[in-house]
Formats: sequence, structure tokens, C-alpha cells
Amino acid sequence: MARLVLKFGGTSVANIDRIRNAARHVKRELEAGHQVAVVVSAMSGVTNQLVDYCKQASSLYDQKEYDAVVASGEQVTSGLMAIVLQEMGFDARSWQGWQIPLRTNDAHGSARIQEIDGSRLIEAISGGQVAVIAGFQGIAPGDRIATLGRGGSDTSAVAIAAAIKADRCDIYTDVDGVYTTDPRIVPKARRLDRVAFEEMLEMASLGAKVLQVRSVELAMQYKVRTFVRSSFDDPDSVGVDSHGNPPGTLICDEDEIVEAEVVTGIAASKDEAQISLRRVADRPGVAASVFGPLAAESINVDMIIQITSPDGATTDITFTVPAIDHERAIKVLEATREKIGHFGIESSTDVVKVSVIGLGMRSHAGVAAEAFRALASKSINIRAITTSEIKISVLIDAPYTELAVRTLHSAYGLDKQ
Amino acid sequence: MARLVLKFGGTSVANIDRIRNAARHVKRELEAGHQVAVVVSAMSGVTNQLVDYCKQASSLYDQKEYDAVVASGEQVTSGLMAIVLQEMGFDARSWQGWQIPLRTNDAHGSARIQEIDGSRLIEAISGGQVAVIAGFQGIAPGDRIATLGRGGSDTSAVAIAAAIKADRCDIYTDVDGVYTTDPRIVPKARRLDRVAFEEMLEMASLGAKVLQVRSVELAMQYKVRTFVRSSFDDPDSVGVDSHGNPPGTLICDEDEIVEAEVVTGIAASKDEAQISLRRVADRPGVAASVFGPLAAESINVDMIIQITSPDGATTDITFTVPAIDHERAIKVLEATREKIGHFGIESSTDVVKVSVIGLGMRSHAGVAAEAFRALASKSINIRAITTSEIKISVLIDAPYTELAVRTLHSAYGLDKQ
Repeated sequence: MARLVLKFGGTSVANIDRIRNAARHVKRELEAGHQVAVVVSAMSGVTNQLVDYCKQASSLYDQKEYDAVVASGEQVTSGLMAIVLQEMGFDARSWQGWQIPLRTNDAHGSARIQEIDGSRLIEAISGGQVAVIAGFQGIAPGDRIATLGRGGSDTSAVAIAAAIKADRCDIYTDVDGVYTTDPRIVPKARRLDRVAFEEMLEMASLGAKVLQVRSVELAMQYKVRTFVRSSFDDPDSVGVDSHGNPPGTLICDEDEIVEAEVVTGIAASKDEAQISLRRVADRPGVAASVFGPLAAESINVDMIIQITSPDGATTDITFTVPAIDHERAIKVLEATREKIGHFGIESSTDVVKVSVIGLGMRSHAGVAAEAFRALASKSINIRAITTSEIKISVLIDAPYTELAVRTLHSAYGLDKQ
Repeated sequence: MARLVLKFGGTSVANIDRIRNAARHVKRELEAGHQVAVVVSAMSGVTNQLVDYCKQASSLYDQKEYDAVVASGEQVTSGLMAIVLQEMGFDARSWQGWQIPLRTNDAHGSARIQEIDGSRLIEAISGGQVAVIAGFQGIAPGDRIATLGRGGSDTSAVAIAAAIKADRCDIYTDVDGVYTTDPRIVPKARRLDRVAFEEMLEMASLGAKVLQVRSVELAMQYKVRTFVRSSFDDPDSVGVDSHGNPPGTLICDEDEIVEAEVVTGIAASKDEAQISLRRVADRPGVAASVFGPLAAESINVDMIIQITSPDGATTDITFTVPAIDHERAIKVLEATREKIGHFGIESSTDVVKVSVIGLGMRSHAGVAAEAFRALASKSINIRAITTSEIKISVLIDAPYTELAVRTLHSAYGLDKQ
């Protein structure tokens, strides 16, 4: 007997037939003797419709009211899933965030979970009832409805799994696992059986859309074994791999990964903007004068390169910011000119950050050199580089994205045989 | 300064433009210095869609889950109305049933209000904030979401008005008041300026669709002055009648009605079925044997007529039941044959109950005689009669409905000049 959380995303509950199909996965686990909590998203399309209503109502809508409007989508699915499970003969009930309660901070629109009281849920599922939980939502201070931001249902699922001490959190989605890279770009991409939390975190942060970054952070923090699989598998006869597992990817502690690959995957992120400051007066503290104001505006700076100009009096500073903060960053920088003297600002959003990720990198030399060699062989120009213990990222021109990803995928031996 | 509840039904909040128009009515009252609570229904069509989902999920859906699903419709409108009011520059916030809290019993699907704590709402509106309340919903024992049954938003509005001690409850709907009879049947029908609670209760019970019966009962019980008006009036320039009031009907205590009309209105109800039991053995206690089992099944019997047959040994019993209970009633009656001996059962749903309603009837003789005379003059056959202090009802064949209503409307001098 295990305790499981099963999470179904919007396309997996898009209509009653899909909900019924999802419920058959729940049935299989119940009949295997497991205790089950289910976390559901809104039916696909519903959230967009509700967001659109809010925008029509006011371009500057109140986030608290937005939350009340948008959280209704998950409320509907939770009730319908409970009805479908009851129709199949199981005891089930829906749970809204405020009923659990799942407490968040007051950052309405993208609230963070602060505390989940798992006791009522544990009591329910221990008694054989399926707890069907509306994902994406919680209750903020002042008893207002809060939502966790887009994709927040994954975060709900992992957090609930931690709160009820589940043995595993199964994320049913429209893909059948985590791949070495995006299979739409590289048809030879392979599905990974297991990925370590740290690797998944880098992949999720860098553009792999399978799981929300925050859900992976939570999974890592609370060591929630998270299994990504397709909701479109036949629930009654799922093909199994050589380990006896259904097709999918287990995200787990690295202890569970017997031999870590040097490189696990290649990710590409388009959400970057490059900013170059030209001929900045080169004196002590100039970097702080540039980056301090950006930090004060919560703009995240990455990939910093500073090159002193040949004359020695000025310096060029290049860095990246999230594309969404691009215009705001330019304004902040223009304002700093008063303080540190005139400099030129150039920027581009037509850049992509391509990353090579792997736990084994920690104990293996020459991984970065291999990336530079492979990209050079295709004449792909590297505009900036950052590295961490388990990741090498390069900034390149956007038109070379697919070529770079395919080249690196082959170079590290990730192609399917 | 007055304290007002403004209630907007589904067609009045059918889309963002309609919500914006409704909000302009709120604006007018705020700018007049009033404290305002708003009660909203789901956007028209939404509730039907949600009910349909539940039916697709299971023909025997759980009422608790149905409530969680369906209550979401009002939740959405309450948030959107709050956003629209904020956009207009007013302080506003949405309130769900559980946030108020509006407590109901556990009759999910058609729960009854048990207690409303008005203190938080009063605090909010006294501080100048508009309280936008999701109608139709409350919180049942066990902290589950409950709904009040179809049309329950009227009931919410009146109950909220009572709880916050409002001076008036304005029901904005798609008609501009209460008429002497259905204007679609009788073009000469007049809008009434004032109607007493008791009269409105009879009219609502008997087929006038303007207000839900339960909301009128509540209004009468708590003496909530309720004003029915059109949400499609121009909110900024509402034409006023000779009393300085906007067009509409005030439902109020009879003390506020200076001179009660003998007859206020004519109502017709199609939701009746006539059942006739033929040649029932005429012995003491036979009526109890017939009506006891119907009462035990909560089938409401009305308009009973008993005629002993010429031979004196048997009796014919005719009565009406709500059309919705027709088939169930027949089954119950067939089962009683074992106990009281064989009798024939005839029934018809092709009947209509036409009623003449008026407070002044209490102090005025000959009102019933006038009805019988008028109907006889058109050769309309009366199948059964019931009367109360302020009402005379006759059961007639359905094809004569319009003729009967028009005839009575003229006979009592209700036609527009």
C-alpha cells in the first residue's frame, strides 16, 4: 500500500470524457490498494477565458479579484472529477484551497504556499475516500482566495504530496516524460527514465516546459519523488519498460540514480534579452552602479561579461535579463547615466540561451570544451557563457537555436540509437 | 443616506458590457451617498453549462459536488463586478458565501439559509466599500459549498438585505416591474406601483415569474422593502413616475399601501395536474387513506373536491398536484388500492389554475361571484375552486387560459386606460 498524489493538467481534463479517462488511472491505483489524492487543473481553455474576462473588465484589474474569478476553473473540475469517481463506485469528495486549508502569502496572482494542513486530507484518504483537490489555489491572509500563478497546479500537487507524506506524486500530462531535449527540435531525443532533482531544476528553469520550476524546487526541498507520465496512456493496459515501470520519467534524489550521466539533457530558453553597455567610464564601483539599480527593481541579471576597451579608459559590459524585463531594464539603465556618465546601450531579444545539463559534470573534466568545439565546428558564435556545477550555458543568436541543440545533443552521445 | 442591496440577475450580467451597465446603477446610488451591497447571479448561460457538465459526469450526481461546480458561476461574476467597480474608481470587493459567512442547512442543491453574519459586510459598506456578493450560494455544515436552488440569487439578496438591515432591496431584472398580469397575454396589463408582500407571495406562487417564491416569503418575514426594476434602464437618466420614483414596483408592507385595490392582479399557473378518483368506497377515513400516503411522499395536494355518487355507496374525489409530481402521485395512489379497495384513476395535465389576487378582497364581498359570472359569460368551464382570504383560484382547461385571464383582467377593471 502506498500513498499517491495524481495530478491531471488542463488537456487531461478538457471535457467529461477526458475526466473519465483520467479517473480510470485513479481507479487502477485504488484497485491496487493505494491511498489516492487527486489534484486537478481547470479544463483547458477555461483559465484563458476567465483571464480574458478580467482584462475586459479592466486593464489594471485587482489581483485579489482576478484570483476569485480564475480559481473557479479548478473548482469546477474538482467537483466534476469527484462526481465521475463516485459514478465509478468510489468514495470521493472535492476540496477547495480554503477547505484544506492550503495557506498562501498575500502575493495575489502568483502567491506562494506558506502552510498546508494535511490532517483533514490524510484523515479522508486513510478512510478510503479519494480527495479531489482543486489545484492552483489557496487561501491568503484575510480569508481571500489566492492563486499560485500559471502552471501552479504542479506546485499544488507537489506541495500536497509533501503535506500528506505521499510516497510519490504522479504528474499526468500531455507528454510521456522528460526527454534529453525537446523532441520537436531533435527527433532523436530520448526519454529519460530518471532525472535528479537538481538536473530537473536546471532543465525546468532553462525552458523544458514539462514541469513548473517552483514545483521542482518544492519536490527537491521535500524530496517528493515525482513521476511524469502521459494521461493519454490506456489506463488499463499500460506498456511497461524493462524495469517494470510504466513509460515516464521519475524525478528523484540523486541517490536513486545508480550511475549519473555526464550530460543528461540539452535545454534552450528563448526568454532572454542581451544588453550591452558601451564605453562605460572604467572606475572602481562602476559595476555596482550599473547592477545595483537593476537589483533594486528585482530584475534578475545573468551572464555578465566585462571587457576593458583598448584605450583602458572605458569598459564594455554585456549581460542578459529575462526578456519580460527587457524594457524595464533599459529604463533603469538610462536613469543611471546621470550618476555614472554617458554610455551607449545596445540590446537584443533575438538571442537564445542553450544549456548542457548533467550531474556527472561535477566529476568529469572537459565537458565545456566539448561544447565550444562542437558549436565552433558549425560556425555558431558564442556571445556569452555561464557555468554552474552541473550546467554550461551559452548565449547564441536565435536563428541558430535548433542547429546548436542538435549539434550538442549528438556531441554528448544523447541521440537515440 | 440609505443602505441598499442591488441585485442583478443573469441577463443583467451576461457579459462585461452588461456588467459595466449594471455597475453604473451602483455608481448612481453611491454618488447619491448611499451604502451599497451588490448581489450577482452567474452570467446567463453559465449555470446551464455547469449543470450540463454534472449531468454528463453522472446522471445521479452528488448534490454536494454539484454545488461546488455550479456555485463557481456566481463566484466569477462577483469578482468581475468588483473589478469593474474598481475601474470606475470605487472601493469594492467580492464576497463568497463562505467568506461572509452565509450559513445554510445541508439540503445541498436547494439549501435553505439558516444564518447570515452581517457584521463583516456592515463593516465593509460602512467604510465606503461596495460589497459584491456571489448570490445563490452559502456554506453548509462541514464547510461544504451549498447552493440555494435555481433562482436562489433573489433569495440571497433579500436575506442579505435583512442581515445588514438594508433600507431597500432593489431587484434589477429583465422586466420593469410587477404587472397586473402577464403583459404577453394581456397587452393592457398595467405595471403596479406597489404590491403588498402577501399579494406578491400569491402571485409568485401562482406563476408570476418576476421573483422567486422563497425570496418573497423572506421579504415578508423580515419586512424587506423590495423594489423590482429593469436593469436595462439608462442608469444615468431614469424616467420617474408621478411620485418621483423610477419605473418599477415596490413590494412592501400593506401599511405602505394607502388604499388597497380589491383586485391587484391575475395569475395563471400551468404547473398543475388534475387527478380524479372514481367510485371510491365511501366510508369514514377514506380521505385520510388517499391523502395520507401522498403527504408522506411530500406531494402537495390542492383544490380538493369530493362528490358523493348518486348511489351513496361510492364517492368521486378530484384534486390537483404540482405537474412535476403527477406520475409519482399516480404510483402512490395505485399502491393504496390494496388498502381501500379498487377505484378508477383519471388524470390530466392539460389544466391551468387561474387566480384573482387582492388584499382588498378581505373587506369586499362578491369578488368570487364576479369571477364565476365573467367566466360563465365566455362559456369557460370551472373544474375546481379554492379560495383564501386574498385569493380566488379556479381550475380550467388549458386552451382557455388566455381568454380567462383577459376576461378576468377586464372584469375587475385592471385594463390600462
